[in-house]
Amino acid sequence: MRILVIGAGAVGGFYGGLLARTGCQVSVLARTDFEQIRDNGISIRSDSEFGAWHFQPHRTLAPGKTLETPPDLILLCVKLTDTVNRVALLQPHLGKGTAIVLLCNGVEIEAEIANAFPRHRLISALAFVCVTRTAPGMIWHQAFGGLAIGDYPHGESKDSAALAKAFRTAGLDCELTENITLARWKKCLWNAAFNPLSVLSGGLDTQQLLAEAEPLVRAIMGEVETIANALGHSLSPEFIDDQIEKTRSASPYKTSMLLDYEADRPMETEAIIGNTLRAAKRVGVSAPHLETLYTLIRMHGPQAH
Amino acid sequence: MRILVIGAGAVGGFYGGLLARTGCQVSVLARTDFEQIRDNGISIRSDSEFGAWHFQPHRTLAPGKTLETPPDLILLCVKLTDTVNRVALLQPHLGKGTAIVLLCNGVEIEAEIANAFPRHRLISALAFVCVTRTAPGMIWHQAFGGLAIGDYPHGESKDSAALAKAFRTAGLDCELTENITLARWKKCLWNAAFNPLSVLSGGLDTQQLLAEAEPLVRAIMGEVETIANALGHSLSPEFIDDQIEKTRSASPYKTSMLLDYEADRPMETEAIIGNTLRAAKRVGVSAPHLETLYTLIRMHGPQAH
Repeated sequence: MRILVIGAGAVGGFYGGLLARTGCQVSVLARTDFEQIRDNGISIRSDSEFGAWHFQPHRTLAPGKTLETPPDLILLCVKLTDTVNRVALLQPHLGKGTAIVLLCNGVEIEAEIANAFPRHRLISALAFVCVTRTAPGMIWHQAFGGLAIGDYPHGESKDSAALAKAFRTAGLDCELTENITLARWKKCLWNAAFNPLSVLSGGLDTQQLLAEAEPLVRAIMGEVETIANALGHSLSPEFIDDQIEKTRSASPYKTSMLLDYEADRPMETEAIIGNTLRAAKRVGVSAPHLETLYTLIRMHGPQAH
Repeated sequence: MRILVIGAGAVGGFYGGLLARTGCQVSVLARTDFEQIRDNGISIRSDSEFGAWHFQPHRTLAPGKTLETPPDLILLCVKLTDTVNRVALLQPHLGKGTAIVLLCNGVEIEAEIANAFPRHRLISALAFVCVTRTAPGMIWHQAFGGLAIGDYPHGESKDSAALAKAFRTAGLDCELTENITLARWKKCLWNAAFNPLSVLSGGLDTQQLLAEAEPLVRAIMGEVETIANALGHSLSPEFIDDQIEKTRSASPYKTSMLLDYEADRPMETEAIIGNTLRAAKRVGVSAPHLETLYTLIRMHGPQAH
């Protein structure tokens, strides 16, 4: 499989690097760190079973450059922030049969791409991973790594099945689902609570948030559950309890939104919270806790004020 | 009138200093700045019509000391924070006929004092003022200064009438009201919105908050209005609009909670927000926006974490 990873940050480097180890031909488009990666590749150190390895992409592209032959599959691994134009990023690299994989957080993030490229297979994917870019071309994988993938808007295809197989060959837990939208709402339920609270609390980790704000965490999760249910994506009645217990039994960690905030990078506010509230409005569900967080979080971060 | 001001900070120094100018015999109990005030009094500079003046208290008491003759009236001007024991502060200074005046923010802050001292006249008072202690014994009055006072739980008395007269003689706009509880809810409606938002937004002033969060400000005010109505304290239908417009037409300023937060002082979270939410619970009113702010604000400030 010939793969182009767009966005050679923590997520793109980690998953691209694992796919390369399975024999996929993986190139990257590096928006930052281009020279570093072209000259030295990407060094990855994992605290779990993947060990440490060097990932030398088949080709390293600077922005504006393309592969001679379009790839079978593009893995779009960019954070969804206000400054990213995903359509413009994808456009130059698409060949006739190129499948697009969106590997990112958030809900309702696919329609824009599906509308822009209706002739291309669109695969939607979620990563459950703690991974950080520690320096140009340096990636530290701290924990987890599992994926959920499926065709958008629903179903499975040979493309998604082949990708799931490649991820599994690389040693990852990859769920191939016929309903990736439900999977997105499930992940969003956790993200919509813990991500903004971690920033707005002044920097608390997951365990501290549970200790000081569990009722609020549950209230927010309850709002997301109601929205998902109203959209026809039913979560099991014990889903919230399960999420709380899983978080409680995991090591404390800082959310990705908090890490972005502390590094003065844009946060994925719209993909995670804004899109959730727009969906709520569409189906007439009230979400006052989440609304409060949304207003507050938009007053933070590098674009604020 | 012989007055003891307990708490010679910005509010106590400003109002005590104005009453002293009218001929009241005003002593102060200084919890901080005792030596400075004993030796040099309090210097007050007002940006409005009060000018600059020197306030030399009749007596300056250190904590633990009392006047030889109990005062006619005690003006309790302490911020209501978790570390303040108001009953213990008042107890040693009360004579048989001493009236107690609570000059502070918040709702439902009187019952504890009324229960502790049932034989004493209890007057409840609100100050609408921007005043800051800039250094030990130095007070800067920036704007406003009006008061609302009334007997607790309701009504007027010769004591409250005499105090209102003294404030007016000092040049202040002082409303003597039969329903001070309603006045507290009206002030709290503004405070419960702007105070926590000013902190949680990362330090915005009133105008910036209106520009970036007016719908949330209105949603919080709407919750406080519903709570007040459920308690029988009916606000006029246009009250929230009036509050927004008055704020918009005033100069931008930082709330007292934000100033406390920035100076790493305790905030009046319980008096303003906690008591409001406890009242809401008692009457079965839901206030999810305010609940969210309450959880967040308690994770901030000097006592947090």
